[in-house]
Amino acid sequence: MSTGVRRRMGVEERRQQLIGVALDLFSRRSPDEVSIDEIATAAGISRPLVYHYFPGKLSLYEAALQRAAEDLASRFDEPHEGPLGARLLRVMRRYFDFVDDHGPGFSALMRGGPAVPADGVGSREHASATNALIDSVRQAAYDRILSHLGVAEASARLELVVRSWISLAESTALLWLDGRRVPRAELETQLVHDFAALAAVSAAYDPDTAALLRTMMRDEPADGPFAELAGRLVSLAS
Amino acid sequence: MSTGVRRRMGVEERRQQLIGVALDLFSRRSPDEVSIDEIATAAGISRPLVYHYFPGKLSLYEAALQRAAEDLASRFDEPHEGPLGARLLRVMRRYFDFVDDHGPGFSALMRGGPAVPADGVGSREHASATNALIDSVRQAAYDRILSHLGVAEASARLELVVRSWISLAESTALLWLDGRRVPRAELETQLVHDFAALAAVSAAYDPDTAALLRTMMRDEPADGPFAELAGRLVSLAS
Repeated sequence: MSTGVRRRMGVEERRQQLIGVALDLFSRRSPDEVSIDEIATAAGISRPLVYHYFPGKLSLYEAALQRAAEDLASRFDEPHEGPLGARLLRVMRRYFDFVDDHGPGFSALMRGGPAVPADGVGSREHASATNALIDSVRQAAYDRILSHLGVAEASARLELVVRSWISLAESTALLWLDGRRVPRAELETQLVHDFAALAAVSAAYDPDTAALLRTMMRDEPADGPFAELAGRLVSLAS
Repeated sequence: MSTGVRRRMGVEERRQQLIGVALDLFSRRSPDEVSIDEIATAAGISRPLVYHYFPGKLSLYEAALQRAAEDLASRFDEPHEGPLGARLLRVMRRYFDFVDDHGPGFSALMRGGPAVPADGVGSREHASATNALIDSVRQAAYDRILSHLGVAEASARLELVVRSWISLAESTALLWLDGRRVPRAELETQLVHDFAALAAVSAAYDPDTAALLRTMMRDEPADGPFAELAGRLVSLAS
């Protein structure tokens, strides 16, 4: 403000600011290591005022997690246009952007255990709230993929391919975060190839997946990621 | 005993019996749902006597988990003889035997959160002890695979392939447990194929993995699981 007097925030605005500040801190270091004092300092308010908006670190962590989950799910938005391989590659880039931005917090969360303040009470409720949130993001990814594939009802085998690939994307991102020894762009392409490869393996057992794979491949340009993989596999097999 | 008098067990023998009884119960239902009373009844002793050997359900659960982890790791034992695909398939069969035997307990454990009694205190220590145990089994699987591949020091990309495949095997088993809608024998073969497929994808970026893949394929019989996959991929790509 031009007067130099700090503008007073409304309750909801202050809550949102605190969530943003906390998410930033929880992302950059393991959430266990972030204190309420630090959050207060970063937000430019007193510790008691933080407690006025959030009863404790746990509730602030859960609110930050909720915002991160919405952010991540929004990165799965992708127009239903153009070849599937290129669509998936764009989503993978945004996924790794997210992972890159939230590294330590993402690792702590996905590696399980009470990612934050056990504090004695509430750790069980916290764990199940956290798991429910992670599951909701996985489910959003799953629904989005099926919709891009044009599949309304997946066979058990196709469901397994898609869900297990989602977990492969998670573990690949987690392994990448541990040392970042492989360029992330390579892993983004690799995960697109992995999807096609896992589908190709499953297609042997499942006519639905085989039909889907043929459709996917048919629409791919000769220089797209799926075609590139197919060429490579042929040369490996020969 | 022929006298009809129940033989008194030694301390260590009783502890081992309790661990076995508890593991059986923790495997068949979600560990959260198993009470000390039930364990006492199943072991044929009183509730206070259970507490004499284990201070609480948490320590009994951790002891059971330790035994399960040793059991699982022992199933990775496989002679260094014959084609790699067939070796991996035998390990996958024993892995699914384990998963089949410990279904609900395995799911509860791997789906994260305090798989057992939060009890207020100790849940953080429990979570980290549990994670360390899970990691030790993953590490045993990783070491065993590298040793079968004849690799002393894995490149970053090969390490990523092997570790992400291990996590794929976990998620595939967990998805299978949820409804068992796909025959497990099919998934055992599929995971062997998945290993080859993920290695083939990574081989594009990594000469070490490519060289390894060529060695793997060279030693495979024409009717082995790897050769079967290669043939299938070629026909899909054409």
